[in-house]
Amino acid sequence: MTPPARPEVLISEVGPRDGLQSVKAHMPTQDKLRWIDALAAAGLREIEVTSFVPAQLLPQMADAAQVVQHALRHRGVRVMALVPNWRGAQAALLAGAQKLTLPVSASPAHSMANVRKTPEAMVDEVRAVLHLRNEIAPGVPVEVGMSTAFGCTLQGAVPEDDVLRLAQRLAEAGVDEIGLSDTSGMANPAQVKRLFKALFHEIGDLAGAAHMHNTRGLGLANCLAAYEVGVRTFDSSLGGLGGCPFAPGASGNVVTEDLVFMLEAMGVSTGIDLDQLMAARAPLKAGLPGEPLYGMTPEAGLPKGWRNRLEQGN
Amino acid sequence: MTPPARPEVLISEVGPRDGLQSVKAHMPTQDKLRWIDALAAAGLREIEVTSFVPAQLLPQMADAAQVVQHALRHRGVRVMALVPNWRGAQAALLAGAQKLTLPVSASPAHSMANVRKTPEAMVDEVRAVLHLRNEIAPGVPVEVGMSTAFGCTLQGAVPEDDVLRLAQRLAEAGVDEIGLSDTSGMANPAQVKRLFKALFHEIGDLAGAAHMHNTRGLGLANCLAAYEVGVRTFDSSLGGLGGCPFAPGASGNVVTEDLVFMLEAMGVSTGIDLDQLMAARAPLKAGLPGEPLYGMTPEAGLPKGWRNRLEQGN
Repeated sequence: MTPPARPEVLISEVGPRDGLQSVKAHMPTQDKLRWIDALAAAGLREIEVTSFVPAQLLPQMADAAQVVQHALRHRGVRVMALVPNWRGAQAALLAGAQKLTLPVSASPAHSMANVRKTPEAMVDEVRAVLHLRNEIAPGVPVEVGMSTAFGCTLQGAVPEDDVLRLAQRLAEAGVDEIGLSDTSGMANPAQVKRLFKALFHEIGDLAGAAHMHNTRGLGLANCLAAYEVGVRTFDSSLGGLGGCPFAPGASGNVVTEDLVFMLEAMGVSTGIDLDQLMAARAPLKAGLPGEPLYGMTPEAGLPKGWRNRLEQGN
Repeated sequence: MTPPARPEVLISEVGPRDGLQSVKAHMPTQDKLRWIDALAAAGLREIEVTSFVPAQLLPQMADAAQVVQHALRHRGVRVMALVPNWRGAQAALLAGAQKLTLPVSASPAHSMANVRKTPEAMVDEVRAVLHLRNEIAPGVPVEVGMSTAFGCTLQGAVPEDDVLRLAQRLAEAGVDEIGLSDTSGMANPAQVKRLFKALFHEIGDLAGAAHMHNTRGLGLANCLAAYEVGVRTFDSSLGGLGGCPFAPGASGNVVTEDLVFMLEAMGVSTGIDLDQLMAARAPLKAGLPGEPLYGMTPEAGLPKGWRNRLEQGN
């Protein structure tokens, strides 16, 4: 059997934070750790493991520091934490997080509704986080995931110029990576191509992940479109956790299993073992009994000849 | 409001035949007719309304002639019927079908299992059908949908040369249109592009529809890939009927509603009214109570600003 190819894309697993935050049920810490172990075993190299927010606001994430510390034992994994602000960033860096991700919304309406700050005020917050990072953990990259970059349920269309101007400001502030998120599931492949192309033109290598939602079924098509214009980092969630796309507040994350299947089938190496990835659904199910999981590939199974194909070096 | 744009793609609705054939429940004739009326009202311009097969083999299609005759009242719709052989073609043409579609499998294993004939023997059958068509209904196009063109659950991979050689033979026989079907849900976007490009090279304008399945979640991504290399006809099924992709024998058809949403969102005119298309789910549900229907766009609804966008001429 040929050795696995060097990964050409980075799948950033967001289930333990983004997915978990979208479901009502509480997952015990020990189950989270087993789930993260299984994700690491499958070959995921970046995992958003938790969120540093006040425990009274989000009891599910009260174990944030413990989860980060556990995840750090996986040497091949970059342990990422979401932080909404300076205070969260401080806690995350002290806990040892290896990458921070901050959400900044391109839509003023969404930004005000979510964090009671304008996008401009959020850029100031990001600046403060970067200042802190430079002081206490200069090696830790700070990513911004730009919410509502493709449209907003509150304001409707979001002008592409607003997205690009905000990206430019974040780049000037010193952010290491700026991704675009289809928070509302409104993106289409033509728009994804146009906007990411423009983003590359605006900020070059600082352009980061495509965070697509499957709200209207276009998740993988939008990932394909992003791939075709040069995006190489994709956010997704095991089992599409939090993904019931029509429940209020749910995210409709792209299903990691289907995304990895698509890319690997295309001959794009992800570094992920699909069998082990599907096996990672077991600890997720165990920790969230009764929660619906999604994913067509896990249900259908891998096609006949799949492993053969790998042995022949694709 | 600007008049609707001239359609750039043809959505060929296969629900009343392909979809219905994959479910166990029986749909009464009157419900079928109401469903077809609703599809026509939504702007569909090609509908595979039935299959001409012996009634004892497929009782669901015993009303084939009646369904064709009813559908013919919709002047904007091309009334298509599936025919497995010469006898079916004769019945379909006598009933007034305006287009015939024949399945021919690229995989010998699948062909033998399905129709107990080799692909070569099926080409002879197609020749006989074409001869009949030339005699009694010279204006009626004959399409071949090539099954298992992207892989086969029995034989695994299907060599692309086999697909192209079969397409060449069918073209030489005089077939008007040759489409490629992902019968087993094994296609990936890179393969779809490669194979359709090669098909265009081999048979030019005779290259027909992309018939994609959503078995492993890649249905829309594969349609996008096909669109990008020039395919302009797409088969899909309202509500993804027959689409539970992991039930034995089910097809996993691409959901018409999501496909139309994707294309229209991209600015590609389909000629279909999405609201009326979603309304066509009601007669389908009424005729098949309890049968699961799929579709993310119908569940999520159209995004904020959607109609506005149309009024601004996209």
